[in-house]
Amino acid sequence: MDCDILVIGAGVLGLSSAYHMKRRDPSKKILVIDKFSGPGQGNSAKSEGGFRNVFTSETNYLLADTSIDAYKEMEEQGHDIKLQFIGYLWLFSQGQHEAIKPAVDAIVKRGGSVTVLSLDELKESVPCLVTGFGGDEEAELMGLEDVAVGVFGEKCGSLDADALTRAYEAEFLRLGGEVMYNTEAKRLLLKPEEELGIPGEPFVWQNTRIVGAETSKGSINAAKTVIACGVWAASLMDPVGLDSFMRPKKRQLFAFKDAKLGPLFKVKGLNEEGSIPLTILPKAKILFRSELSEGSIWLGCADDLGRRFELEEDPQAEEDYYTNNVYHVLVKYFPCFEDVRPMNMWAGQYAINSLDETPVVYEAHGMYYIGAASGSGIMKADALGRIIDALVAGEEEAELQGGRRFRVANLGVRYRHVEHERFVI
Amino acid sequence: MDCDILVIGAGVLGLSSAYHMKRRDPSKKILVIDKFSGPGQGNSAKSEGGFRNVFTSETNYLLADTSIDAYKEMEEQGHDIKLQFIGYLWLFSQGQHEAIKPAVDAIVKRGGSVTVLSLDELKESVPCLVTGFGGDEEAELMGLEDVAVGVFGEKCGSLDADALTRAYEAEFLRLGGEVMYNTEAKRLLLKPEEELGIPGEPFVWQNTRIVGAETSKGSINAAKTVIACGVWAASLMDPVGLDSFMRPKKRQLFAFKDAKLGPLFKVKGLNEEGSIPLTILPKAKILFRSELSEGSIWLGCADDLGRRFELEEDPQAEEDYYTNNVYHVLVKYFPCFEDVRPMNMWAGQYAINSLDETPVVYEAHGMYYIGAASGSGIMKADALGRIIDALVAGEEEAELQGGRRFRVANLGVRYRHVEHERFVI
Repeated sequence: MDCDILVIGAGVLGLSSAYHMKRRDPSKKILVIDKFSGPGQGNSAKSEGGFRNVFTSETNYLLADTSIDAYKEMEEQGHDIKLQFIGYLWLFSQGQHEAIKPAVDAIVKRGGSVTVLSLDELKESVPCLVTGFGGDEEAELMGLEDVAVGVFGEKCGSLDADALTRAYEAEFLRLGGEVMYNTEAKRLLLKPEEELGIPGEPFVWQNTRIVGAETSKGSINAAKTVIACGVWAASLMDPVGLDSFMRPKKRQLFAFKDAKLGPLFKVKGLNEEGSIPLTILPKAKILFRSELSEGSIWLGCADDLGRRFELEEDPQAEEDYYTNNVYHVLVKYFPCFEDVRPMNMWAGQYAINSLDETPVVYEAHGMYYIGAASGSGIMKADALGRIIDALVAGEEEAELQGGRRFRVANLGVRYRHVEHERFVI
Repeated sequence: MDCDILVIGAGVLGLSSAYHMKRRDPSKKILVIDKFSGPGQGNSAKSEGGFRNVFTSETNYLLADTSIDAYKEMEEQGHDIKLQFIGYLWLFSQGQHEAIKPAVDAIVKRGGSVTVLSLDELKESVPCLVTGFGGDEEAELMGLEDVAVGVFGEKCGSLDADALTRAYEAEFLRLGGEVMYNTEAKRLLLKPEEELGIPGEPFVWQNTRIVGAETSKGSINAAKTVIACGVWAASLMDPVGLDSFMRPKKRQLFAFKDAKLGPLFKVKGLNEEGSIPLTILPKAKILFRSELSEGSIWLGCADDLGRRFELEEDPQAEEDYYTNNVYHVLVKYFPCFEDVRPMNMWAGQYAINSLDETPVVYEAHGMYYIGAASGSGIMKADALGRIIDALVAGEEEAELQGGRRFRVANLGVRYRHVEHERFVI
C-alpha cells in the first residue's frame, strides 16, 4: 500500500495533524493508522481534559490560546466537544504567591484574562474551602500552609478529550482522509535514496530515508511518515536511533459523584455554571475540576519524584494512591471530600519532556515527529497539528488559529527556542 | 554503611568527580561504587581516546580545552596517560568546506590552533590520501566527493582512556577516597525529609530526597548521591522518575596492524610523530587515528540513522559492519587499507543527548547527575568533574583548569545554555 503521508497514531495529535495536512492539500493521500480500535484510545481519551491559556512561556501561551480559539470554532460548527469555560483556580500560600507574582503580572500585562483573588474574595467565592490551619497538628505535620491568594484564569476550563479527538477524525474523513484501526506499526522502513539492490542495504555511505512502516497489516510505503503515537513513539524511533525526547509516566484520575460534594457546585462569581473551576491545591500538585456533563468531580495528582518512567500497555489507577496519599491533603482544604470514595478511576500516560516540558516537532530523514507533549497535548492539539503541517509542507512558519504565526523551528531540535514555564502544574 | 557523598560509577566521569570533590574537602567521606571489577570497565576504557579543542560551541571548547590542559598537567605529574598531540584532520569536499568555513573562521578568531590546508598542502602532508575520484564509477555510486581542503587542529590528539581513568582513581585514593568494585547499585533510596514511621512513606505531600542506593552489597546511605554511570544511569533514574537525558547507542572500534598501513606513519608536517592524525573522512562519519603505543590504527564510524538506541550489557563489534560498510568508503580515500583486516575489534556505548549533544549536569532532590556526554566524556572529564563538584558544593560557578570559570547552570535543565555545535563528528 502506498500513500503520500502516513500518520502513525490516531490520537488527538495524529488526527489534528492529519486534518490540517489534508486541509492544506485534499489531493494528497493521507493515511492514519492506529493499533487501537478507535480514535484516542491510547491516552487522548484518558485525559483530564483541562485546558488553559495561563502560561508564562510565550510558546505555551500561543499554542494553547490559539487551540482554545480553534475549539470554540469547532463547537460553533457543530462538534459537541463540551467546552466548559469553568476557569482554572490556583490556590497559593503567601510564599508561593510572592514567588509567582512577577509571572502573574507578566501574564496580566500580556492581556491574559487572569484575576488575583484576595483571601476574602476567595472565601466569598468558594465557601467550602478551608484556607487556614491554625492549631491543626495534622496539617502542620503535612506541611500544609494557609491559603493566601487565588489566581483565576478565565480562558480556561474543560473539554471532552474523546469528543475532540473524534471531531478531528470526522473533519479529516470528511475531506477524504483514510484511517485504519487495529493496525499496529511494527517498525519504520528505511530505504536508500538510490537503491542498488545489493544485500546489506542501506550502507553507511548511502543517504537513507524513512519510507513508511511495516504494520500488522503489511508494509505501508509513504513519501513522508509522521510519528504521532505519544508514549509509543520511542518503540518505533529507538530502533532506528532517532530520539523521541520523552519518557512515559503514569497519571491517574479519580472520579467522584456524591451528594456530599454539593458545595463544589455552589461556587460564586467565578463562572456561569457556578461550579468549582479546575482547582490546583498549594500542596502536592493535586488538582480537581467539576465535570458538568455528569455532575461529578475529576481529580488528579501530578506526582513526580518516585513515580517511574516506564511504558505501560495498560496502566491502572491505584485506589490506595488516592486513599492513603492524596486524600489526606485534599480533605484538609476541602472537607466535603470526607469519606467520599472514588466511583471510578483510570490511568493514562504522559509523554514527558523533562527538559522544557514543551512539545517537540522535528524532521529527520523523511520522518516527522510530533510528541513529548508532556500532558498538554489536548489543549495544544490544534496549534501542534498546524505546526507539523507547516513542517511537512516545508514552510518556516505555521499560521495558527486566528492568523497568529509561529516559527516551526522553535519546537525543533537544532534551533529549539522555548521559554521556561513558571506556571507548571 | 554511611557516607557524605556516594558516587555511582567508577568511569572517567565518576572518578574525576570524586577526585575533585575529595580535593575540595578531604575530610568528606566519599565512596565510589561500580558494578564492574575495576575502573573504567563500563565504557570509558573502550573509548577511541580522541581529544580535541576544535569546537564552535564555546561550552564544548571550554570543557575540552581546559580538560586537555589538566591532562597535560597530570602527565607532568607522572601519570602515563599517553597524551599524543597527533592532531585532528578533517577532510572536506568543496561544498562541505564552504558550509563550515564561517565556523572555522570563528574558531581561528577565538585563537584556536587550527590550520586550513589547501589541496596541495594536504597532498604534500598525506601522500597516501586519494583526493580525486574522476572517472571512478564506484566512487560516484557511493556519492564520494573529491577532497578539497583539510582542517587541522593542533591541540588535539589521543590519550589512553583507561590510563586516564586510573589516574583519577589513583589521585582520589591518594586523598583518602574509597572505591568499592563489584558493587552494583540496584535502586536509589528515597526518604522523606521528616520521616514519620508510617507505612506507605514517602507520601505525595512529603518532601522526599534521594539518600543513597541499595546495592548488591547492602544499602549505602549518603547525604548526596552522584549518578555518573553513563549509559546505565537510566536504569537507576527511570524508576524514580528522574530524566537522564540520554539514550545509549553502540559505537564500534576496529584496530589494524599491517605493514601495508606503513604510509599512515609517514605523514609530513602535521605532528612530531609523523603519523596520521585522527582523520575524519568527508563521508559517513568514518574516522581513524594512529595508536602510537602499538603502531596500530584505530578506526570508528559514527553511524546514526538505523543504529538503534538500546542499552546493551555486552555490546559486540560486527566484523561485517567494517567489511561490507565502512571498508568500501575507506579504501577509496586510503587505498593502503586494501585487503587489510582488523586485528582486533570491540564495541562500547555512547550516552547520547540528541538535543544538543552536550553533557547534562543537574541536581534534583539530593541526586546529582552527570552524564549524557554523547561520546565526549573522556575529553571533557576534568571540566565535568569540577562542574559537578561545584554543583554539589552549592556554588554557581566552577573553576576549570587554568582558572577559567564556568556557570554550572549552563549544563543544567532549567537554565540550560549551550550553543549549537557545528563541528560534529
